[in-house]
Amino acid sequence: MNIRLIVKNLGYVLIIEAASMLPSLFVSLLNRQDDFSSFLITILLLLVLGTAASRINVGYENLYTRDAFALVALSWLLMSAFGALPFFLSGAIPRFIDAFFECVSGFTTTGSTILNDIENLPKGLLFWRSFTHWIGGMGVLVLTLAVMPSTKAGSLHIMQAESPGPLPGKLVPKIGQTAKILYAIYLAMTLVLLLLLHIAGLPIYDAFIHAFGTAGTGGFSNMNESVGAYHNLAVEIIITVFMLMFGVNLSLYYQAIKGNPKAFLHNEEFLFYMGTVVISTVLIMCNTVGTVYQNFGEALRHASFQVSSIITTTGYATADFNLWPTFSKVILIILMFVGACAGSTGGAMKCIRILLLFRIAKREVVKIIHPRSIYSVKIGGKVVDEETQIGVLTYFFFYLVAIACSTLVVTLEGKDLVTSVTAVISAIGNVGPGLGLVGPMGNFSSFSLLSKIVLSLDMIVGRLEILPVLLIFSPSSWRRANI
Amino acid sequence: MNIRLIVKNLGYVLIIEAASMLPSLFVSLLNRQDDFSSFLITILLLLVLGTAASRINVGYENLYTRDAFALVALSWLLMSAFGALPFFLSGAIPRFIDAFFECVSGFTTTGSTILNDIENLPKGLLFWRSFTHWIGGMGVLVLTLAVMPSTKAGSLHIMQAESPGPLPGKLVPKIGQTAKILYAIYLAMTLVLLLLLHIAGLPIYDAFIHAFGTAGTGGFSNMNESVGAYHNLAVEIIITVFMLMFGVNLSLYYQAIKGNPKAFLHNEEFLFYMGTVVISTVLIMCNTVGTVYQNFGEALRHASFQVSSIITTTGYATADFNLWPTFSKVILIILMFVGACAGSTGGAMKCIRILLLFRIAKREVVKIIHPRSIYSVKIGGKVVDEETQIGVLTYFFFYLVAIACSTLVVTLEGKDLVTSVTAVISAIGNVGPGLGLVGPMGNFSSFSLLSKIVLSLDMIVGRLEILPVLLIFSPSSWRRANI
Repeated sequence: MNIRLIVKNLGYVLIIEAASMLPSLFVSLLNRQDDFSSFLITILLLLVLGTAASRINVGYENLYTRDAFALVALSWLLMSAFGALPFFLSGAIPRFIDAFFECVSGFTTTGSTILNDIENLPKGLLFWRSFTHWIGGMGVLVLTLAVMPSTKAGSLHIMQAESPGPLPGKLVPKIGQTAKILYAIYLAMTLVLLLLLHIAGLPIYDAFIHAFGTAGTGGFSNMNESVGAYHNLAVEIIITVFMLMFGVNLSLYYQAIKGNPKAFLHNEEFLFYMGTVVISTVLIMCNTVGTVYQNFGEALRHASFQVSSIITTTGYATADFNLWPTFSKVILIILMFVGACAGSTGGAMKCIRILLLFRIAKREVVKIIHPRSIYSVKIGGKVVDEETQIGVLTYFFFYLVAIACSTLVVTLEGKDLVTSVTAVISAIGNVGPGLGLVGPMGNFSSFSLLSKIVLSLDMIVGRLEILPVLLIFSPSSWRRANI
Repeated sequence: MNIRLIVKNLGYVLIIEAASMLPSLFVSLLNRQDDFSSFLITILLLLVLGTAASRINVGYENLYTRDAFALVALSWLLMSAFGALPFFLSGAIPRFIDAFFECVSGFTTTGSTILNDIENLPKGLLFWRSFTHWIGGMGVLVLTLAVMPSTKAGSLHIMQAESPGPLPGKLVPKIGQTAKILYAIYLAMTLVLLLLLHIAGLPIYDAFIHAFGTAGTGGFSNMNESVGAYHNLAVEIIITVFMLMFGVNLSLYYQAIKGNPKAFLHNEEFLFYMGTVVISTVLIMCNTVGTVYQNFGEALRHASFQVSSIITTTGYATADFNLWPTFSKVILIILMFVGACAGSTGGAMKCIRILLLFRIAKREVVKIIHPRSIYSVKIGGKVVDEETQIGVLTYFFFYLVAIACSTLVVTLEGKDLVTSVTAVISAIGNVGPGLGLVGPMGNFSSFSLLSKIVLSLDMIVGRLEILPVLLIFSPSSWRRANI
């Protein structure tokens, strides 16, 4: 590993984090609450450490894949540790691990909380809590690439390690330029959403919080009852539509702007994603009407909101789906695995992987029926080579092994099976709520220290798609020979 | 498809089934109970239909892979339908679907039951119920290959489709000879077990029942409380050891007989299997001692029995593990996925696949650390090609998709999540018990007709490792062009 270069880059990340804390500092100042000093101390600390690290002299600036993967994983751990400081220093969250959990949940756009009473927190802290969703949605290192002038060798590897999906694409030849375009689209969409939410009746502060939570597909709210607290149909519809929009590969919007709006209809992942949303909504609607809900309108309202919220891994709630029939709950659990599109801010497996897995599975059946036929696996008209197929298939295996191992550790504290398993599935998919004690009306406060650490790691493992995190825990990647 | 040849072979299967019903007819005669006539009618029906079908003239006798796969899947469906007749005709199980479920559960060596009071059944029927485990453990078509004189082209495909595991091996060049050797080993081990159980204190009838259930890793008992009903430590130890022995690849015994007992120690799958058994037993022992059990001895007794019973997918119970702590339950659920060794009578994923999946996963990590290194996936010193890797990885995906889809259908009747999911996992892994309502002290009687059909199909899907069953439901495999 090129440790010096990794540390230098970590320095940049800390400086960016300091800068990203400024809006929260401003909100805190505006509201004259006692969280101001905790922000100030954290920002100064980040600046001092970040500047020191970024001045390290490095021999050569070439980041290999392994360096980029380790850099990304370490960045996320560090960012979350420092991002937790304002909660901890202000005394709003007395235990550091709880603050760390909350901050990891923010950056990874999970949205699980250990807070019993959210509405009691100072406004600056709540703003920071939700702003981490917005930053984490696109990735801090992608942000670094966007704002740093130099184009280093190896930045494609960074993009690869931090961006979700098996096949990260460059929109334009220069990585830094690609990152800028993506952030511009992201910012523009967020501003439109902010405006619409405010027009629909949310106070400007609440509109900011829910715009960040929706854009990052995170799910933190400033209300204890999440979006359901407003009983505002317009707000629910706006959030439903925008959750779905932020679950789409952002590069499709770029193509649409460039004069090719048909890109959506020719994108197999987008069609699979929308198809899954529609089918799931209809199934849940039919399953809940007459039992949980009085009429089709009410069932459609809650089913469509919840399906969009879960498949995009946002995690907002307008209904306690813990009380839905088992059939509907199983659909939600399946959606927690599927997730949104690659290249979006959503988490979990991603539609393109699921689609690819089904294509590979179909090929295995065809091979028996027609042993001599040549039938290759294709996505978007392009043949997917065996190397990539094995990569995607193995990812699926990694994903389930991570769930199995984490569940084992979490069950050590003796919570029931449904709570434990869905807490882990939700954490690794960056969803937010699960079922049982961690259902949409529950929270993660009752978990043990060990479980909170495991779930925090799961969120990072899920957000970074496993391999970067595995790498920093693999002894052989730190051996001298690799440096 | 070569439909005429498939039908002709189905005829042979029905004749073999008629022959395999004779011992039960004899037991029924001996006990002078009213199930005699139902056996007689079924046997005559099987003989008439079987003889008629086996006399069909076929043009050429070459079975392609697709024909063999379809033949195996159809055989299992037919066998189960006819095997259900004695239960149905005698009135012991009034509904045909229930009788079908019970018989599928028998042949697939699952051991799930819809009977509330097992001890009330006539002895002939109980004997047949358990004998289906013994037949199904090794496979009916493998038995056909063993007893039929002709060696047809394509019989390797039959063996491939019916034998569990990704890499079916031939012990000797001739398939028929291989099948004979395997059945001889199987028979000898069963007889030793029978003798030991009788010596340890079981009445000879009970010894037969539990020898069949253990050898086939099935799990049907003639007692409502399963093996726990005897409160006999010696019986429990014998069954624990033999469950584990029947979970080992039978070809290892052949190698041991041929003068190579070290074959066990050089077999990676065997070591993985035994390692998993030991680790799981220790973990459950530590987790249950002091909470569920008073002392280490008692905890060891139940933990080792239950771990062996679940990993070999037998399903016998001496304890109600539904009452164990969640951690222990999760270990059992993981074991339900893992299963025993390939080439044994056990079900589920099989140890060799899990081992291979971990090797492939490790290679993906190594590839990032050392991008230029050449590192191939090996089992038993042999390189596993990419085609086989994709096959095993895809099997894992198929397995989980089958579980997800079946769970959705089963939850339609509104049972709780844990019951529904574990019923499906247990069915597809051919285990027997699950958790919740289908725990070791429960049964499947309360499920709806639809759920019973889905669970029956899951058992066959799991036993035949999915592809054969998918094939007969795939329209393109029946098109004229393929015939």
